[in-house]
Amino acid sequence: MTTSLRTVPNRLSKTIHQTSKWGAKYKWGPQETETGMCRLSLSQEDKNVRDWFVKETKSLGCEVKIDQIGNIFAIYPGQKKGPPTGIGSHLDTQPTGGRYDGVLGVLAGLEVLRTFRDNNYTPQYPVAVVNWTNEEGARFPKSIMASSVWAGVSSLKDIYAIKSITDEKPVTVLEALESISYKGKTQANCNENPLKAHFELHIEQGPILEKETKKIGVVTSAQAYSWIGVNLKGRAQHTGTTPMDMRADPFLTAAKMTMAVNEIAERHLGLGSVAELHISPNVVNVIPKTAEFIIDIRHATDVGLENIENDIKRALENIVSDTEVILEFKRLFHNDAAHFDKSCIDIVQESASMIVGENKTIKMLSGAGHDSCSTTNANVPTAMIFIPSKGGISHNPTEYSSPEEIENGFKVLLNTIITYDARRTM
Amino acid sequence: MTTSLRTVPNRLSKTIHQTSKWGAKYKWGPQETETGMCRLSLSQEDKNVRDWFVKETKSLGCEVKIDQIGNIFAIYPGQKKGPPTGIGSHLDTQPTGGRYDGVLGVLAGLEVLRTFRDNNYTPQYPVAVVNWTNEEGARFPKSIMASSVWAGVSSLKDIYAIKSITDEKPVTVLEALESISYKGKTQANCNENPLKAHFELHIEQGPILEKETKKIGVVTSAQAYSWIGVNLKGRAQHTGTTPMDMRADPFLTAAKMTMAVNEIAERHLGLGSVAELHISPNVVNVIPKTAEFIIDIRHATDVGLENIENDIKRALENIVSDTEVILEFKRLFHNDAAHFDKSCIDIVQESASMIVGENKTIKMLSGAGHDSCSTTNANVPTAMIFIPSKGGISHNPTEYSSPEEIENGFKVLLNTIITYDARRTM
Ligand SMILES: NC(=O)NCCC(=O)O
Ligand SMILES: NC(=O)NCCC(=O)O
Repeated sequence: MTTSLRTVPNRLSKTIHQTSKWGAKYKWGPQETETGMCRLSLSQEDKNVRDWFVKETKSLGCEVKIDQIGNIFAIYPGQKKGPPTGIGSHLDTQPTGGRYDGVLGVLAGLEVLRTFRDNNYTPQYPVAVVNWTNEEGARFPKSIMASSVWAGVSSLKDIYAIKSITDEKPVTVLEALESISYKGKTQANCNENPLKAHFELHIEQGPILEKETKKIGVVTSAQAYSWIGVNLKGRAQHTGTTPMDMRADPFLTAAKMTMAVNEIAERHLGLGSVAELHISPNVVNVIPKTAEFIIDIRHATDVGLENIENDIKRALENIVSDTEVILEFKRLFHNDAAHFDKSCIDIVQESASMIVGENKTIKMLSGAGHDSCSTTNANVPTAMIFIPSKGGISHNPTEYSSPEEIENGFKVLLNTIITYDARRTM
Repeated sequence: MTTSLRTVPNRLSKTIHQTSKWGAKYKWGPQETETGMCRLSLSQEDKNVRDWFVKETKSLGCEVKIDQIGNIFAIYPGQKKGPPTGIGSHLDTQPTGGRYDGVLGVLAGLEVLRTFRDNNYTPQYPVAVVNWTNEEGARFPKSIMASSVWAGVSSLKDIYAIKSITDEKPVTVLEALESISYKGKTQANCNENPLKAHFELHIEQGPILEKETKKIGVVTSAQAYSWIGVNLKGRAQHTGTTPMDMRADPFLTAAKMTMAVNEIAERHLGLGSVAELHISPNVVNVIPKTAEFIIDIRHATDVGLENIENDIKRALENIVSDTEVILEFKRLFHNDAAHFDKSCIDIVQESASMIVGENKTIKMLSGAGHDSCSTTNANVPTAMIFIPSKGGISHNPTEYSSPEEIENGFKVLLNTIITYDARRTM
């Protein structure tokens, strides 16, 4: 049990705020820490925090492996050999993101290692802190991207070819990896470079913990979700001379589809959003030639998601059927609902109950996708710990969790890792 | 009557295609001429064609005046002094435009002057060929922009401050004028630098002449139109964690508004379009914080346009009323329906009947706005000549009018100018 290890109060919070200098943007409050982040995956800011993370973990005695898709494994040695117990999340952020989403999980992992070092504590087995590449899917439109490659769900070749959607001149994942020198040599493969388990501390990013006045969410599963890329081709024509009934207006079509996506998802008690769209030529008096957008749909169950996806496909076809707009769509991303590991969940629950009291914990579902979904896909026993997000706000510079909430989350993680390690028999 | 002046067959078409090198883009057919254009107002390509136009008209003996908003007046001397008879249009194009829209009118004016020179013909009064700046409103979102300044409808100061919407880093009109050295010294003012009349040859940009198998459109008026800028502010939030009923999604709101704009315009037998839109942050899994777009509405009558505009404003307010999205809108541009001058129209009709036969002419309304609307606003007697547009297509690289159609249009313009000049008494 962790109670025997001394921890340094609030050091984790300080680390979060100190390292926010790599990408800090969008000041929203008077405090120095009240500034959001833009640290897009594989950007210069991402390189800076990665370089620091590698140096920091090496100084604690870690062996650092970088795999072919830029995932960083900082492995703290144990008394025995064996696949490390993983603590993972991501250091990349949304373009208009906050300081906690993902960052908390990696730096809490680092804080676990620092606590080991401070206490001269050596776990039975190695413990790896993992920084997974492009979890957000913001720069390269595929979330939990590199953990999916590691899990064998996505092929390295396909992923290398994905183009960025946030750069003026799009670059591929491969080009971006090479440009910041994070295309490593370690196989991006859960068999070649395995983890024994995966634990992830994350902000909730939703409103439930706050509403229920709970301190820790014991996450049992994560929603199923898909991203569907839609390309509409119409006819560029003059807005002032083209009769309404002679148009092939792909943006009007996109507008109808956006409404349909929202309606269908709501009807199925899921989520549906269109948040990324490009029209061309994008001038006032030219009916666009093309509209391209990505649909994001989510549901707690795989069958619920399937129903939404099928209804949306029918709706898209229906909407174009009486127009001259040409429709193409394809699934860009899919992840089944992830069900975390019973014994890992139990250890999280045990630790959480000990640290904040059982009545301040709640078993819950994750709305967002996480790298822990990928490790579950790789059959690695996995569980997650949530702390509250103020106002349920995330993917927004004003995203906030208090130092106390962060400290709670860290202590639950630390206890979970020590307990899991202590119970490991191989 | 022009019949006495020798013309050089197809020289105008050749000039159109030769000068297309400044901005040629988007090859769509095997012929060299089957390529569209991107010559945005006050761009480097626009400077190149302007420099050539100035040199060319000077070599014909013109005095060239450049006004404060970059309008170029190339004035061919007459036997007597007096305000010149104007032939005007624009050399700027849409970002994905064709070779004829606007360009035809300016280069046909040049061809009139060349024909005068070839025939050693001196009109009674000076004839000015005018290249009006930013007619398209594509780069700077205000169409017939500089002719409106000249007409006293827009203030020079306001227009100088307009920011581009097609540049990665927006620039103002003033900065763009200065950067290509086309901020001239002549007052941009119809009283200080007057025209006696204004004639404009243009492609129809719509389907009517082709459908009716007519060769020349005698344009009697142009539609009223307005552009309304809409700003929507919502709340950036996670698409995967934010319940459908806790969202403030400005893009969903924009989609509903786009449908309303189309429906309302159609109901009033007018036109309504949303063709320019920016959402931010524009990534897959973040409900956007903002959506900004411009509505383009048109009607043959001022009262019809007013009805559309009022209904749209009510609809916009209605759509946001049960959301947390904040709506702001303002009119960016407005032009009343333009009614051209009876005696100028009569001369165009007379010339057209003579050249293509009366049964191949038709009196018609212009769907698009033109610099001739501005000269009408300045109380300058004005008329327009249309030639057919293949398939009614314009604001598209494949925009096309044949060499014969161009030759017809040119001859009608030449005859119109000579007739008008001959009948001028002061
Ligand atoms: N946690 C998180 O925001 N992940 C991004 C992937 C998603 O869209 O759910
Ligand atoms: N002729 C033309 O395309 N003018 C552009 C202004 C408009 O949108 O009508």
